[in-house]
Amino acid sequence: MALTIGVDVGGTKVAAGVVDEQGRIVVKLKRSTPAASPEQTANVISDVVLELLRHYQADAVGLGAAGFVDEARATVLFAPNLAWRDEPVKKKVEDRVGLPVIVENDANATAWAETTFGAARGHEHVVLVTVGTGIGAGIVVNGELYRGRWGAGGEPGHYRVVPDGRLCGCGNRGCFEQYASGNALVAEAREFAARSPGGAARLIQLGGGTPEGISGPAITRAAREGDPAALRCFEIVGSWLGQGLADLAAILDPGCFVIGGGVSEAGDLLLRPARAAFDNRLTGRTHRPLAEIRLAELGPDAGLVGAADLARRG
Amino acid sequence: MALTIGVDVGGTKVAAGVVDEQGRIVVKLKRSTPAASPEQTANVISDVVLELLRHYQADAVGLGAAGFVDEARATVLFAPNLAWRDEPVKKKVEDRVGLPVIVENDANATAWAETTFGAARGHEHVVLVTVGTGIGAGIVVNGELYRGRWGAGGEPGHYRVVPDGRLCGCGNRGCFEQYASGNALVAEAREFAARSPGGAARLIQLGGGTPEGISGPAITRAAREGDPAALRCFEIVGSWLGQGLADLAAILDPGCFVIGGGVSEAGDLLLRPARAAFDNRLTGRTHRPLAEIRLAELGPDAGLVGAADLARRG
Repeated sequence: MALTIGVDVGGTKVAAGVVDEQGRIVVKLKRSTPAASPEQTANVISDVVLELLRHYQADAVGLGAAGFVDEARATVLFAPNLAWRDEPVKKKVEDRVGLPVIVENDANATAWAETTFGAARGHEHVVLVTVGTGIGAGIVVNGELYRGRWGAGGEPGHYRVVPDGRLCGCGNRGCFEQYASGNALVAEAREFAARSPGGAARLIQLGGGTPEGISGPAITRAAREGDPAALRCFEIVGSWLGQGLADLAAILDPGCFVIGGGVSEAGDLLLRPARAAFDNRLTGRTHRPLAEIRLAELGPDAGLVGAADLARRG
Repeated sequence: MALTIGVDVGGTKVAAGVVDEQGRIVVKLKRSTPAASPEQTANVISDVVLELLRHYQADAVGLGAAGFVDEARATVLFAPNLAWRDEPVKKKVEDRVGLPVIVENDANATAWAETTFGAARGHEHVVLVTVGTGIGAGIVVNGELYRGRWGAGGEPGHYRVVPDGRLCGCGNRGCFEQYASGNALVAEAREFAARSPGGAARLIQLGGGTPEGISGPAITRAAREGDPAALRCFEIVGSWLGQGLADLAAILDPGCFVIGGGVSEAGDLLLRPARAAFDNRLTGRTHRPLAEIRLAELGPDAGLVGAADLARRG
């Protein structure tokens, strides 16, 4: 069976795996990312691929990275967590490993994996939203990954949901990811704890005694215990998420949304309020079918698997 | 040369035309729409098509109508200005005229016409936004019309731009079309005139002496004369429009936006502030090319032309 290699290029780790035609990871390696040096980042990627090629025969390499990738899937225009700016990653890695390489936005690669092997199998119109530190997304339309004219599509984390709203890392105000992300969840909990220490006693306890110590996993834990303050944080963030899905459905009308990212590990704590807001806010909801909203199935390796599968398809 | 027939089914008029392969209208007829009766509406459409077929040979018929059209392009699920609810329009008209019929959302048909014959010729990724009473839209991706899973995509008029904002006809609050449409333009002018009659003297004069008399064309006329109040109305509505285009670009990254609809006849009065807001708000704007923003070229017959061309392509 033909194998390909997928590489997830993160700001701290490079993970590379040999992937088969069913999307199964045969073997996986990890390295630290020398993120400050574009050259060394490409070297580490090439080294880990060559290491895998010493033991496995593979036909192509797919790289997934957070950032804008050009429409030729060759150059990373901008990557927020790496020093890549107009970086010809495809060429640099191809020259070193001697195999065809494609580069893809990591959320796009994840959307492809979940559509091909995961939660959205059988769907032709899929929007994947990863709820992590920020919000990433990938769009599949008519059974194909949608990249936009210049590869910069699929970034609903930065459409504006509140005029003059919270400041975003992108420089604008009121972006979706400031309201529906893991960071937003933590910000809600800390703010509540600072204002109402009594009501947030369990959260503060899990945060080591201070509002600033409260983390995402602590909020999930408290919510699972039934802590009202933690549940309220999920309700707030989940409602923003559901409103965002309703907005995306007005524009894209997908058959299935897939929710991934670290916060999605909270499962129904996040999805229940998201579904409620979606059902309540979707325009024309009495005249149209409602999209499914499902949890991602493939976990944090989905980007690697999707990149490998996209490389296989060329 | 093969001809097809395009029909624009509006709430007050049915316009039908014979269209050639270059998108030129050979002949056009109009009838009143008996909008309250689903049956009579289908009859009038069939009658006008049969009338055209007495003088011209055509291969197929395309109908464009405002509303949700199912993904098979056969049934109108819901049309705000007609009595059609789950109406099998394709079958009814096919049975009467004896030609293949397709049904398409009118803004989709317009987007197709502008991409094929009009302002977005040569582009593969296009978002058309019609700024009329409300906001309509059509999306072309990878050179094909995008309909969504259930035909309900391309309705950015109803994504939410202001939490708890203005009430919309769709039942939700804060929808884009409540801020960036012709209705919004008129509402701004009337509100300003009611609050500041001195500053809005010219607008009130054109409105026949009252704020309530101010119409869209009056605002355009005053703005062309340089009236500051009218110019300010275009600035407000144009800025909302540009912010919306920036939001759509974050999600869809089109190469070209086409702005049509009645308000677009104001030309640069609308487009200048829209472009300024777009350039200022697009996420990642320093790392990506900016989409073109162009005025529609084909005028109010674009929907008819697009429907005819879509029927030709089957």
